[in-house]
Formats: sequence, C-alpha cells, structure tokens
Amino acid sequence: MPFPDLTQPELGAYQSDVTRPADFAAFWEATIAEARAIGGAVSLIPADTTLKAVEAFDVTFPGFGGHPIKGWLVLPADRTGKLPLVVQFLGYGGGRGFPHEQLHWAASGYAYFRMDTRGQGSGWSTGGTADPVGTTPSIPGMMTKGILDKNDYYYRRVFTDAVRAIDAMVAQDFVDAARIAVCGGSQGGGISLAVAGIDPRVKAVMPDVPFLCDYRRAMAKASRDPYGEIVRFLAQHRDKKAQVFETLNYFDGVNFARQSKAAALFSVAVMDEVCPPSTVYGAYNAYAGTDKTMEEYEYNNHEGGQAFQDRAQMVWLGKRFT
Amino acid sequence: MPFPDLTQPELGAYQSDVTRPADFAAFWEATIAEARAIGGAVSLIPADTTLKAVEAFDVTFPGFGGHPIKGWLVLPADRTGKLPLVVQFLGYGGGRGFPHEQLHWAASGYAYFRMDTRGQGSGWSTGGTADPVGTTPSIPGMMTKGILDKNDYYYRRVFTDAVRAIDAMVAQDFVDAARIAVCGGSQGGGISLAVAGIDPRVKAVMPDVPFLCDYRRAMAKASRDPYGEIVRFLAQHRDKKAQVFETLNYFDGVNFARQSKAAALFSVAVMDEVCPPSTVYGAYNAYAGTDKTMEEYEYNNHEGGQAFQDRAQMVWLGKRFT
Amino acid sequence: MPFPDLTQPELGAYQSDVTRPADFAAFWEATIAEARAIGGAVSLIPADTTLKAVEAFDVTFPGFGGHPIKGWLVLPADRTGKLPLVVQFLGYGGGRGFPHEQLHWAASGYAYFRMDTRGQGSGWSTGGTADPVGTTPSIPGMMTKGILDKNDYYYRRVFTDAVRAIDAMVAQDFVDAARIAVCGGSQGGGISLAVAGIDPRVKAVMPDVPFLCDYRRAMAKASRDPYGEIVRFLAQHRDKKAQVFETLNYFDGVNFARQSKAAALFSVAVMDEVCPPSTVYGAYNAYAGTDKTMEEYEYNNHEGGQAFQDRAQMVWLGKRFT
Amino acid sequence: MPFPDLTQPELGAYQSDVTRPADFAAFWEATIAEARAIGGAVSLIPADTTLKAVEAFDVTFPGFGGHPIKGWLVLPADRTGKLPLVVQFLGYGGGRGFPHEQLHWAASGYAYFRMDTRGQGSGWSTGGTADPVGTTPSIPGMMTKGILDKNDYYYRRVFTDAVRAIDAMVAQDFVDAARIAVCGGSQGGGISLAVAGIDPRVKAVMPDVPFLCDYRRAMAKASRDPYGEIVRFLAQHRDKKAQVFETLNYFDGVNFARQSKAAALFSVAVMDEVCPPSTVYGAYNAYAGTDKTMEEYEYNNHEGGQAFQDRAQMVWLGKRFT
Amino acid sequence: MPFPDLTQPELGAYQSDVTRPADFAAFWEATIAEARAIGGAVSLIPADTTLKAVEAFDVTFPGFGGHPIKGWLVLPADRTGKLPLVVQFLGYGGGRGFPHEQLHWAASGYAYFRMDTRGQGSGWSTGGTADPVGTTPSIPGMMTKGILDKNDYYYRRVFTDAVRAIDAMVAQDFVDAARIAVCGGSQGGGISLAVAGIDPRVKAVMPDVPFLCDYRRAMAKASRDPYGEIVRFLAQHRDKKAQVFETLNYFDGVNFARQSKAAALFSVAVMDEVCPPSTVYGAYNAYAGTDKTMEEYEYNNHEGGQAFQDRAQMVWLGKRFT
Amino acid sequence: MPFPDLTQPELGAYQSDVTRPADFAAFWEATIAEARAIGGAVSLIPADTTLKAVEAFDVTFPGFGGHPIKGWLVLPADRTGKLPLVVQFLGYGGGRGFPHEQLHWAASGYAYFRMDTRGQGSGWSTGGTADPVGTTPSIPGMMTKGILDKNDYYYRRVFTDAVRAIDAMVAQDFVDAARIAVCGGSQGGGISLAVAGIDPRVKAVMPDVPFLCDYRRAMAKASRDPYGEIVRFLAQHRDKKAQVFETLNYFDGVNFARQSKAAALFSVAVMDEVCPPSTVYGAYNAYAGTDKTMEEYEYNNHEGGQAFQDRAQMVWLGKRFT
Repeated sequence: MPFPDLTQPELGAYQSDVTRPADFAAFWEATIAEARAIGGAVSLIPADTTLKAVEAFDVTFPGFGGHPIKGWLVLPADRTGKLPLVVQFLGYGGGRGFPHEQLHWAASGYAYFRMDTRGQGSGWSTGGTADPVGTTPSIPGMMTKGILDKNDYYYRRVFTDAVRAIDAMVAQDFVDAARIAVCGGSQGGGISLAVAGIDPRVKAVMPDVPFLCDYRRAMAKASRDPYGEIVRFLAQHRDKKAQVFETLNYFDGVNFARQSKAAALFSVAVMDEVCPPSTVYGAYNAYAGTDKTMEEYEYNNHEGGQAFQDRAQMVWLGKRFT
Repeated sequence: MPFPDLTQPELGAYQSDVTRPADFAAFWEATIAEARAIGGAVSLIPADTTLKAVEAFDVTFPGFGGHPIKGWLVLPADRTGKLPLVVQFLGYGGGRGFPHEQLHWAASGYAYFRMDTRGQGSGWSTGGTADPVGTTPSIPGMMTKGILDKNDYYYRRVFTDAVRAIDAMVAQDFVDAARIAVCGGSQGGGISLAVAGIDPRVKAVMPDVPFLCDYRRAMAKASRDPYGEIVRFLAQHRDKKAQVFETLNYFDGVNFARQSKAAALFSVAVMDEVCPPSTVYGAYNAYAGTDKTMEEYEYNNHEGGQAFQDRAQMVWLGKRFT
Repeated sequence: MPFPDLTQPELGAYQSDVTRPADFAAFWEATIAEARAIGGAVSLIPADTTLKAVEAFDVTFPGFGGHPIKGWLVLPADRTGKLPLVVQFLGYGGGRGFPHEQLHWAASGYAYFRMDTRGQGSGWSTGGTADPVGTTPSIPGMMTKGILDKNDYYYRRVFTDAVRAIDAMVAQDFVDAARIAVCGGSQGGGISLAVAGIDPRVKAVMPDVPFLCDYRRAMAKASRDPYGEIVRFLAQHRDKKAQVFETLNYFDGVNFARQSKAAALFSVAVMDEVCPPSTVYGAYNAYAGTDKTMEEYEYNNHEGGQAFQDRAQMVWLGKRFT
Repeated sequence: MPFPDLTQPELGAYQSDVTRPADFAAFWEATIAEARAIGGAVSLIPADTTLKAVEAFDVTFPGFGGHPIKGWLVLPADRTGKLPLVVQFLGYGGGRGFPHEQLHWAASGYAYFRMDTRGQGSGWSTGGTADPVGTTPSIPGMMTKGILDKNDYYYRRVFTDAVRAIDAMVAQDFVDAARIAVCGGSQGGGISLAVAGIDPRVKAVMPDVPFLCDYRRAMAKASRDPYGEIVRFLAQHRDKKAQVFETLNYFDGVNFARQSKAAALFSVAVMDEVCPPSTVYGAYNAYAGTDKTMEEYEYNNHEGGQAFQDRAQMVWLGKRFT
Repeated sequence: MPFPDLTQPELGAYQSDVTRPADFAAFWEATIAEARAIGGAVSLIPADTTLKAVEAFDVTFPGFGGHPIKGWLVLPADRTGKLPLVVQFLGYGGGRGFPHEQLHWAASGYAYFRMDTRGQGSGWSTGGTADPVGTTPSIPGMMTKGILDKNDYYYRRVFTDAVRAIDAMVAQDFVDAARIAVCGGSQGGGISLAVAGIDPRVKAVMPDVPFLCDYRRAMAKASRDPYGEIVRFLAQHRDKKAQVFETLNYFDGVNFARQSKAAALFSVAVMDEVCPPSTVYGAYNAYAGTDKTMEEYEYNNHEGGQAFQDRAQMVWLGKRFT
Repeated sequence: MPFPDLTQPELGAYQSDVTRPADFAAFWEATIAEARAIGGAVSLIPADTTLKAVEAFDVTFPGFGGHPIKGWLVLPADRTGKLPLVVQFLGYGGGRGFPHEQLHWAASGYAYFRMDTRGQGSGWSTGGTADPVGTTPSIPGMMTKGILDKNDYYYRRVFTDAVRAIDAMVAQDFVDAARIAVCGGSQGGGISLAVAGIDPRVKAVMPDVPFLCDYRRAMAKASRDPYGEIVRFLAQHRDKKAQVFETLNYFDGVNFARQSKAAALFSVAVMDEVCPPSTVYGAYNAYAGTDKTMEEYEYNNHEGGQAFQDRAQMVWLGKRFT
C-alpha cells in the first residue's frame, strides 16, 4: 500500500509555504463581530431518549447571519459544579445524528456539545441545519460554494457558527468558561483548528486527521475527495485559479495554527489519501502554541486512530482539565 | 452488456404509475405567474468571437425570483424576416460554455438560445449563473436541494427560468413566436418536457434521453447518478420518504407529458444506466400530443444518439418549421 | 441503484426452502452440553478508563472447548438491584475494541456485554481472542474453515461461545436472569438468531440485517462478501457442493428461527448487497415466536438503520424489560 | 455472486432462436473448397527444447487464402503405429506459446496439435501468425473486423484455418484419420464447434465454455468482453444492426451444432460473465449428434472446470479413442 | 488528485532523450514520394444536410498506397476569393462523424477539412475509411499493428494519408496554399506534429495534448491507454523490446518537432494520464520553429482546454492568417 | 503504466536494510531439528491418471509437527538410474491441483515434486493439506496468522514442511541427492529462498518474482495483496508494529539469501505490483552464492516471465544438472 505523501523524517521537517494575508486576523475579527452583532436566542430543549446516566438537550443557537444552528448537548446526569466543555465538530457530509451516539465525553464528566454543520447532514448521518445562503456556479459538495470571494465562501459561515457555538455554551451556568476544548475529525478537525485560531477562550484543541489545511498541496496529494472538488472546479473554470487560491488563504488551517495558543493534541495518518499527512504536519509544524503533541498512525488511511485516539484524547484532556 | 431495464416489447407497453397531484397545473400556473410579476429586464450584448457566418449575443434575462439568468443567443448572419426559435437546456452539471459551441441550429437558419442552468456550470462546461437561494440539509448535487417542500425544490426555480427564457426570446423582433421549439439531452430533456407541459407557446419539443421522469422507478433502475442522489438522501433521512415523493410528483416528466400538446421527437437508449429507458417511455407513452415520435437506440448507454439524433432533429424540425 | 433482490410485497411472502436436519436440535444440545462439561472460570477485571457514569470490566470466560473468550462488560455506575442484560455480538472481522465504545445500553440502565469473536478482531476493530483450532484448506476469511464437516465448522465454535457468554453473565449477581436480550448487526445478528434458537433463557432478540441465513440463496444474491467466500471455495472445490450445503444446514438462521420463541425485533435493508433482504425475511417469516417485528429500510444497503435502529431497539426493549 | 443468466432447470430447456441461413452449409463448403484450391505446403521442423518424453515440431501449414499458419505438434517419444489426434484451438487473444506448455495430451499417447490464431497471440501468450487481410472501421479486437459482410468477417478466415489444420495433420503418416478430436476453451471452444459442424472427419469435439454462440443473446447477457466489442461497435454504427446480425448468423455455434454428428463433451459455467451459460446451452441443446454430454460448473465464472475438465476430457476421450 | 508526471518548473526544462535515426527525414521523404507516385483521384460530393450558412462536401482522396480516405470539407456559404485552410485530424478511435459537427472553423471563414483515420471510426464517432492492410500478431487497438518493422507500422500509413489530405486540398481552387494550418487533439495532435514535420507547406500547427510523442517515457508515465497497448504487447513479446523501440523512433513527435518550422500553438494538461505532460513538453521544447506558444492547463486531465483552447486557437490563427 | 517501484540502474544498486537477528540460523536449525525429531512415515501411492509418458504418485509426508503434507511426484516413465530432483512450491492460495498439470520437468527427465501448502489450496487450484494449528486474531489470509510470535507464525510451519519434503524425497532410491533443485513463483519463490537458505543439500534455487522478502519495504510499495494483509492488520493493531516486524525478520528472504550458497536463477518483473522489484533485488543483491543470475522482465507485472522463464529454467538447470 504505497504511502501517498511524505513519510518520516520528511514529515517532521515539512514547512508549508501557504501565504498568510496581511488582513487575515482582521478579516476574522470583523466576521465574528458581525455575527455577534446580529445576535439571536439560544434554546435548550430536553431530548426524548431512554438515557439515564446522561442528560441530553436539543440545542438551537444563532450562527453566522443569526441563522439557527442545531446541536446536541449531553451532560452527566450525576453532576455538581461547573463542567469542563468539549465541543465537537463533524466530518464532511455528516450531521449531528442522535443524542445517544458518542457518549464517552459526557460519561467521563464533560459537558459535551456536538454541532451540526449547516447544509450538510445527509451523507453519513442526519443533520437538521439549513444553509440559507445561495451560491455561484459550483461543483457538487460544499468546497467550491462561493469560492470566488472570501466573503461568500461557505466555510466563512461554518467557522463563524463554530465560534458562536462556544458563545452559546459559555452562557450556560453549568459550563466552566476556563476549561473549553474543541475537537473533531477531518472537517471537524479543520473547524477545530480554525476556532482555536480565532477564539482565545479555547484552551485545548484536538484535531484528528484535520481537513482544510494547506489546500494547494492537499489538492496535489489527495487521491480521494473532497479536496478534489476544487480540482474539478478549476478543471472547468480554467481562468479562476488565482482568485480561488486568494480566497482559500483566509480559510487555511496553517494560517489558523500560526496564531493559536491552546494546548493541542493532533493526530495524523501516514497513509491518508483524503487529508495528506504533509498537510497535517503543515499545520502542526506551524502551530504557535508550545504545548503540542502529534499522535502518528503509520499504517492508517483517513480513518486514523479511531477508538485508539478517542482514548488518547480522554487521557490527554483529563490531565489538563481535571 | 446486460440491459439495465425493460426491453422491447415491454418498453412500448410500459405505463408509469406516477400520481398527478390535483393541483399540479395550478401549482405551475401560480409559479410562473409569480415570476412574471416580479419581472426584470432582458439584455443582449454582442459576444466577442471570431465567428462570421453567425452572430452571437450574451443574454441576461430575469428568471425565477427575478434572478439574472445567462444564455447565448446565436443567429445566422445572413437572415431576413422572423426566425424560428430553438431553445436548448443543458445536461446535469454543465453550463452554457462558449458561443462557438454547437452551431448547427444557427447554421441551419434558426435563432438558437442556450440557457445556463442556475448554480451548475462547473461539471463539464462552465456557466455564469448563480442560484441565490439557500438549502436545507442535502446531498452533494442539486437533486435534493429543498426536496422536502415543493415550493423550495431546486427544479421549481429551474423550470421557471426555462419558461422565462421563452418570454425573453419572444420579446425580440427577430423571433417568430409561432415557431418555438425546445430541446435538450438528459436534464435538458427533462426541462424541455416540463416547459412543453407548462407553456402552450411551445410547438415542438425534442427531449433526448430525458432525465427527471418517473422518479421512483428511475431510482430503482438507474445504476449511475444523479438519481442516486435521492437514494443516498433517503438512506440517511430514513423518515422522509413520503415527503420526498410528494414533492417529486410536482416535478415529474410523466405528469408534464400528460398535459403537453406540442409535436414531440423523443429519443431513448435501451442500455441507459442513468435515465432508464422505461422511465423515458413512462413519459412518452403518457404524452398527450398526437404528433409524437420515438427514436430508439438499442445498444447505447446514456450518450444516446448523439450526432445521429442531432441530424434526425434537424430533419424532423425542418419538416415542421420551414 | 437497482434493488439486488426481491422487494415488497414479494419479500413479505418469501418462504425459504432451507432443509432442517432431523438431528438439528440434538446436534446443538450436544454441542452446548459438551462445552459446559469442559467448564472453566470466569474473570472480571476492572478496566482502566476515564469513564465515570459507567463502570467497565475486562471479562474472560470459557467458550467452546473451554477456550478463553474475551468481552467488555459495562454497567451503569449508579445502579441498584438486578439489571436486565444485553449481550451484543459483532459484525464480521471486528473485535470488541475498547470499553468506551457504544455506551448507550449501559447509559440506559442495562448490564451490557460485548463479546469478542474468536480469531477475528483485526478487520475494523481489534479483538483479543484466539481461535486455537486449525483448519482444512480454506478461502481467506472464516466462512469456509472446517466447512466440510459440521463438527469442524468455525461457527459451531462461535455459536457455542455465545451461549457460554450468557452462562458467564447469568452467574453474576447484578444480572436479572429473567431479562436477557441478545443483539448484533450482520454476523452479530446471525449469532443472535442462533443463540435465541438454542437458548430459551433469551427473552428478546434484536438481529439487524442478519448474516448467516438461507446460505444458498444468499450466495446467489449477495454481490459483496462474505457469502462470496463460499462461492469461491466451491469454484475451486467443484466436487464438494453437497458436502458444504449439508454442513451449512446446521448453521442456518432460518433453522434457528424455526425453533425460537423470544420476542424479536429484526431489521432489514432492501438494498443490502451483503445480506440480501430475502434471506433476512427467510428467517423472519419462519420465526416461531409470536411477538415479532420487522423494521424495513428501503433505500439502505448493508449499513441498515444504524442510529435509527439503535433508537428503535432502546424503545422496543424498554417496553419489554423495564 | 448473482448468477448472470439463466440457471437450472431453465438452462436445460433453453432453445436459441438463432436463424440458420438457407445457404449456411453451402457458404462453408464453398469457403473450404476455395482454401483447399489455393493449397500450399506443410512444414514440420523439430523444435529446440529440453523435452525427452515427448517430441515437438514447429509446424507451418496453409490456411485461408493459403496464408501461413503456425502451430506446435507434440508427439509421445515412445510411439508405435498411428496415433489418435487432438487439435486444440486457443482462447481469445492468445497464441500458441511454447511447445513445453500443456503436455497432458501427448503424455497420454495422442498426437497433439495446438494451432495459432491469426493476428492474435499477444494478449496472454505469444503467437507467430499474421492476419494479412485488412479491415473496415472496427473496434479494437477481432470481433468486428469485416463484420459488415460474411465474406470479409475475421472468423471466416479463422474457421477455415482450423479445417485446414486437420488437412495438414491427416496428411502425416503418424496420424490415424479415423480418430480425430478437436477441443478448446472459450474462443477455442467456438472454433471447435465450427470445425465439428463443417468437417465430418472430426469424430469427437470437446468445447469448454464455448464462445461465438447465440451472439445476440450473448451480447445482452455478457457483462465482460469480448461480446461487448460488437455492442460498442453498434453503439457507434447505430445504422448497421441488421447487417451485423446477418453476418453473424453464418458464424454462430448454434448453427454449427445443428449439423454436427461427432461425439461431444461440452462444459459450461453457470456464473460465466463472458460466455453466458444459456448461449452454451443454446448450442448444446441444438446439437445434432446423439452422443453428447454436458459438464456443468455451478459456481464458476469463465474459468470453468480447468484441470477438473482436462481430467474429464482425458477419461471421456480415452473411452472413445483407445 | 496527484499529478501523474513532472510539474513546473521541471516541465519547462525537460529534454527528451529520444534518438533521431540518421535516415529519419529520408524515410519520410521516400514514404511520401511513394504514395504520390501511386496517385489517385479526389472526389468532392455535396453532402446532404440542413445547413445553410456553410456548405459541406463528402470528400474521398487517395492516401497511402492510393487507398481511398474519407473526410468532410466544410466551407462558409458566403465566401469570396481563396480561403485559408484548416485540416483537423482525429483522436484515437474516432471517425469523421457528420458534417454538422464542429462548425466553428468554417463559421469563422476557413475552409475546414476533417480527415477520417483509417480503420478507426468506431470508438466515439463513426468513420467510413478502411485500412486494407493486414497485421502481424498485435494487441487490440492500432498501436502495435506492424510495430516490428517501420515499413509495416500502422502510423506510417496514417501520417502519409495526412500529407496526402493536404495534397488533395491544395488542388482545390478555393484554397489558399499559402495559409495552411493543421490541428487536432491527442492522436490528432500527434498527426498534426508529424505533418508539420514532414510537409513545409504547413504554416501553422495546433497540437492539443498531443499523443505519439516520447513513447518510452509515455509508456512509463501514462496510467491510461492507448500507450498501454505497447506495454501489454511487450509484456507478452518479452523478446521484442529493442525492435519495437527502433520502429517507434521513426514515428515520434519529438523527432518531427525537431525539423518543424511552422508557427505552433501547443496545449498541455498537467494532470493528463493519457498523454503525460512531460512527453508533450518533450516535443514542445524540441520544436525547431521559433513562433511557438504553449497553453498549459494545470488542473486538467486528458480533456485539456476544450472550448477554452478552441477559442484560443481561433484568436491565435486569426492573427496569423487573416 | 507507471513503474511501481525503482527501475534500473537503482534496482541493481539497491541494498535492503533488513536486520538479521543474531539467532536467525539457530532458530531455524532448532525448528528443523524439532520437526525431524517428531518424524513420521512417507507414503507414495500411484495416482489414477491417463498419463503414459510419465508416472505419477500421490505422496504424503510428515511436515512441521509431524502433520501430514500432500504432494504429487511425477517421474519420466522411461527412466534409468537416479534422477535429479526438482521440488516446486506454490503461489499464494493455490494447492497441488492434479498430477497432469505442469509436466515439463518430468518430461525433461527430472523427478518432479509439487508440494501442497498447508491450509491454502482453495484460491486458484485445490489442495488437500490441512493446517491443524489455530490462530490469534488475524486478517483473512495467511500473512498475519500467529504474527505476534516467531514460534507461532504460519510460515514457520510452511518453511519446515518444505525442508521435510526434501527429506522425504531424498529417502527415495530414484532420487539423486547430489542434484536437488527447488523452485516456485511468488510465494513458491519465497519458500524456495527459505529452503535454499536453511538446507545445504539444495544445489540450485530458481525463485520467480519471489514473495516474502524485505517485508517493510514491500508493504510500502506493493499496491496489491497479500503484503497488504499485514498493513491492514497494523491499521487495526496500531500498538503491535514493533512486535510484528520482530517476527518478520525471522522469515525474510533477504536473510535467507544472506546465508545461501546454491546456484541461483532469479526472475523479477519491473512492473510487479504484488512483489515489488526492489524487494526481489533486496534478496538477490544480498544473495551469498556466487553462481547467481537475474532474468528481468521490464514490462511485466506479477505474472513475470511465465513460459519464457520456464524455458530459461530448463536450459539453465540442464547446464548444471545433466
């Protein structure tokens, strides 16, 4: 099974050449400020389940543009005082599913929030969140929606939703605002990196095989989608290359990593055909925070560490938050 | 190469069991009326080409919601009097491309208009038309955008654009409003059928291997996309089956065929894995007009008749319009 | 996406023609008795996890031949009195993984035991249980190991392990022997059916898209493995057909269903290419118990109902056990 | 693994509806007579090998048009009197290879001749025989070369070569002209059937999973090439269907079978995706000779019986020729 | 989507190491002279179409060996004086199709001739030209026909046909012999390069993603056919490597480029898996003419620039010929 | 067709970095001694065939653990004195098949023995030998059976069987113990290398495209199984990497080559996706014997030289043994 990209020791030494726009931080500050200005109410409704050891809530909060975003909040039934918070973002195409899925964070004593990804939620689990914003001509999938302008790009809305999810959670009295962690695999890892780069309230970030990093290299190394969506878009829109890469620089995990200070537990799979390992190291090696660790899975493809990594996360975060 | 569906003589006898909603005609009348009420201006700008034997224009007209829709208009350079009109709709994923493509209609003496499909135009040719309407959770592609409500469904906007394209063309003084034909392959064939069913100004319709017919059967017979998008959507949204099929009944080519009177030249490919032949016959056998002909290509897959069918169309339409 | 097998209403009417050997029940009684006679000790060691809302144990119990079989037992931390028991068997190739996976049964108040499958545990999750018995010439995979003799066949050992797992659990004082349920997907569903057919202590069985039913038909309808392992074996051992099917009759879910009385919640996927739906109905329609329900997922392949079905199971079992 | 075609008992009852042209026998008589009239010399040159138990010769004989055709002749080293003859024809794309391959006929006491197939010999073994006749537009492969006219069709030349191979062999003094058998797998089986239908000197024919039978049905049932070459040809030459099938009737194994009297041992594979089993039964059920046997391999694809069938052939032919 | 070959800046610097035989030019001079000596008549018959803005003729002219070769000639209906000529050669497997296809050259004021490729014309469009020359053992397809001797190689006939097509056209009074251009994509690009290298009458050459260049490297970099035909031939004819490459040197676009003076507009696709980009640069970087331009499509596979490149050609040629 | 690995001249220079454990030789001496100590009887039963020029025997001999191992022995019918011996080992998944297969060694005057591979014999030919030893959790196939401990690893049993096959043959009076050769393709080549490394009685070894060499590199270069079995095992057992490679060092063809003195005729295929050419050169370049030759097939995949290599072997061995 040929390795699709660099291997060690080249991976450890790899430095991405992604450009960071001068107004990168300003762009994101303005974006978040705009969303907060629109505001909106957060609702928590007890979910109808058979669960007893944990308590689940159907949450709706205002995201980008004030649009309603859904998520599940799960808390240990037996709790006292303020809880550390784990916010999880989802892989590409999925939705928040059901509250009985993935109970290990709540069962370990965390307030656990799983955020829906707008307009997705139909590929491998169901979501309930619309993306009420239209699009210019694009390739099936989300990767090229609005890609010709940084203000229209789909992930501008998603990353904003993610920061606003934290806003919604820290407003709850059972959450300890000093112990906020974000995590996620693949797209969820990319969103985590973005949030950790934008929002200093985040104290720990755990991106697994993160997507949305070092796009141009990723497009040249990934043999499976979704980076290929951008390749196919440019295969038709042969005259839009510069414009596309100008937009993507504002959404690159490498750039978020360069300004992030949270403790970080990354994972990478050396046989990953979806999120090539060099692009993960591109973010990791650029990561500004000093408490950073990489779990490397040599013979794994995009599934990465799975339950091995979940266990590693629980131990790692436990040392920092409890 | 196994035939993926019925063959003759079963095809000739096949009757679709698609339900026609009681308010089907009313729904479409209201939809078109609403779009016309919004109105908007049509612009024709001479296109920059090297072409001499034909003249090309970059057209923008108001479609559903008054949204700007693009198209190319190509006229014979040497013309006198009013010209018969051929409006072509495009296959799934494509865009209007360049004016120098597909000159045979203009070169044969027709005013030829090729309409962009909103939000597509990135899959196999480029388009320039946005779809400024957002969406509920959906599968990559257009097939499930807004599918939970007939008023939100993507093709409501597209079919309306198509009728409004005719509105835009008949307003031009070089067009003979008594000789209007529509055509297209695959999705373009499905749009043609819809327009012919909605708009009595259409005197001839030429759907090739049409898509968007007899959805439920198509989903069970097609082994290649895009009908599979709906299958995958329902594979996740297991609780939305009834709702989805209720919507689709308003967009089914079989139902448009049942109320269409234009002369019709269909084509079908008996090995078609994308638009199964029985679903094409489902529309053809239900077609209300009496001047109808089917060209059948026994050993073809979704490519259908290609240049053979183009030639057949030019001869067939020539007998009716010149 | 063509349906790979029968659809409704043929599915509902399908009757498998699998033969039930005259000594079927006797064979299994003798087999279980033999294993029990060998005996062996059960050990429960607290697992090292971060979990607080539930308590997990690393279990080893004696299976077929007294061989040590592993499993995870997970209990609600907050418990009183005897608990209803859910034993889950695993899909083909997988292992018990980690105790923090799949917490929804324990979180809902059940004693939950997940049994390793001997010799597997390397395909999609890890196991820790050897199969210390050798094999005659066979195809890669477990399906043809010892298939030329019912006493040597691999699943004789696995089904016996499964019954012995219940023996191990009912010996624990926190288990209510009157409320025992078994479940599992695919291979796990096939094992569940076998156990429910062999062991009258089982009061509820929940097989999802069960494997190991109606082999000969399954071999002719499944386009993806593992039934194909037997096809490939017979493609070489062209002279062993009768012998193979004679063995398989002793391991067919249809025959177990014919003698099973537990309440049953089946699920089936109509597009299932691995466990063809008619073979699932072959077992369901033959099922002897009168409290039986089928959840049908029309547009799903072998993934079946997933979280939808987990939710349905929790509700269904809750009505019977709590 | 779904069966690609009919299964028993339908196979046993299947009757092909292939038309036999009125001048079928006359066409072939004239064709062979014409080739014999052209004549040409046969050469046998001892081959350079390390073999001792058998003796091998590099043979060149005049085929259709007097063109030089190659083959290997292998005789037992220890021989007395005239030997029974086995002529083998090759599967599609192959060539005669080396004399040390397939020694079981010579080692069993037969004069064994393996004939090259003109113009092939590059796909899975090497040949040394040109096809010095050009072609009309055709699809890659041999199936559509000259297919628009029975006199130009490629297999007219090949079948003639095969009859002329027997002419060349019976002229040798070590061959017993009263004991001539022909055999071959796939294309070689189709050639065998043709020769047995044309040439009454053939006393035994052993076609394995024969190709070149019941073309129209084969084209509709085979999911793998080479029948698909004709499908693809007609997918382009949409106007040549009648012409193609008119030619093929002169080359159909069903028609050869209808006039064949030799003892016959067929084999068929019920999962054959290349030579669908019904097309083999189409020839077998039409076979005129009364000493006929079918070996059926239920779970095999186009590989058929392989060494099992070789063994069956040696036993079956031994009973008739020794 | 990994790049299958070199990328920039390596592409720009790449120098092919193809050997140019000493008698390369002499071989081609003799070949063309021989064909001209055989001679033959050219016929132009008005084609039966509905086209009015252009006029089309069904042309037959004598090619290699005097064999009749077909083509379509399309002229602007409204014309005066002598016209510049564009001769187009076709991609692998295709045929000249119908005269109503690809009208943009005639509509832009050129005499446009589309030449059939002998023996092909069945793969993606239909042709009407036979190749009346037989072949030694070869792999399906044209690439290995006669490959063991430069005089027998298939492309010797095709390249000669192409030069003779120009002979046929310059003999017509409406053609301006001082303004002759050749073009084509893939195989058509390879033929264009050959003609431009052989025939100094050609003043402009526009090869798109050209095939038939730098064979040995191409065979090692292309992951899709047709270069693979030669690989598969050598996989069987393991002893013919030297002989094959000796032949190919006489047919290599790199060698034609080395002696070509016409103005040249190349295109290349950096993701091309059929005609690897380095092999296109192998010809381009060796191209002797000084007016040369490369259009590079970074994210395209073998489809290359399509309508973008057609537009670029019309503008580029217009600047040189009008 | 891209080369999957190194090409020349890098191949010729490649040096594997496989570690040879200090107790490598001792481990194998002890293993063989242990098997010989268990002992067991050899039986030769005349096989029931139609063969006359050769004589065949059904052999059973005691292998590892004294387990009964099957093989076919074929001798020239016409023989005098002691014969040189060729022992052939089989490719992965196959079995000894029938005695009438592969007669060229016996027909060339050798005693030829084809050994069954325990537990296999179901993949592409049939075997009759069980592997009566069970296994820890493993991936379908043989590659990971017992891989966590060198004493449990499957190939410890197979390599021992192979040495014991020679023990069984040299005990026969028709075998010349001074002229013993071993051969085999792929897995058979790997076994040959092992035997030649362990057993000094072997005077000639002919490994074709050998498997089981330079595992770690092979796992990184092979794109097709069976090396992938180990990759997939480690993809699950993420914590077992060191343990696995420690075991494999005892079974690596590179290490056997380092201590082998027999004359050697290797073959390698430069496009081999199963046994990457560098891993074959890894063994060849390390081979200790001085009479060594490599046959290289540049354009072949794992099929390698086939009949070309058989011919080369017969000539090469003839020069050494006759």
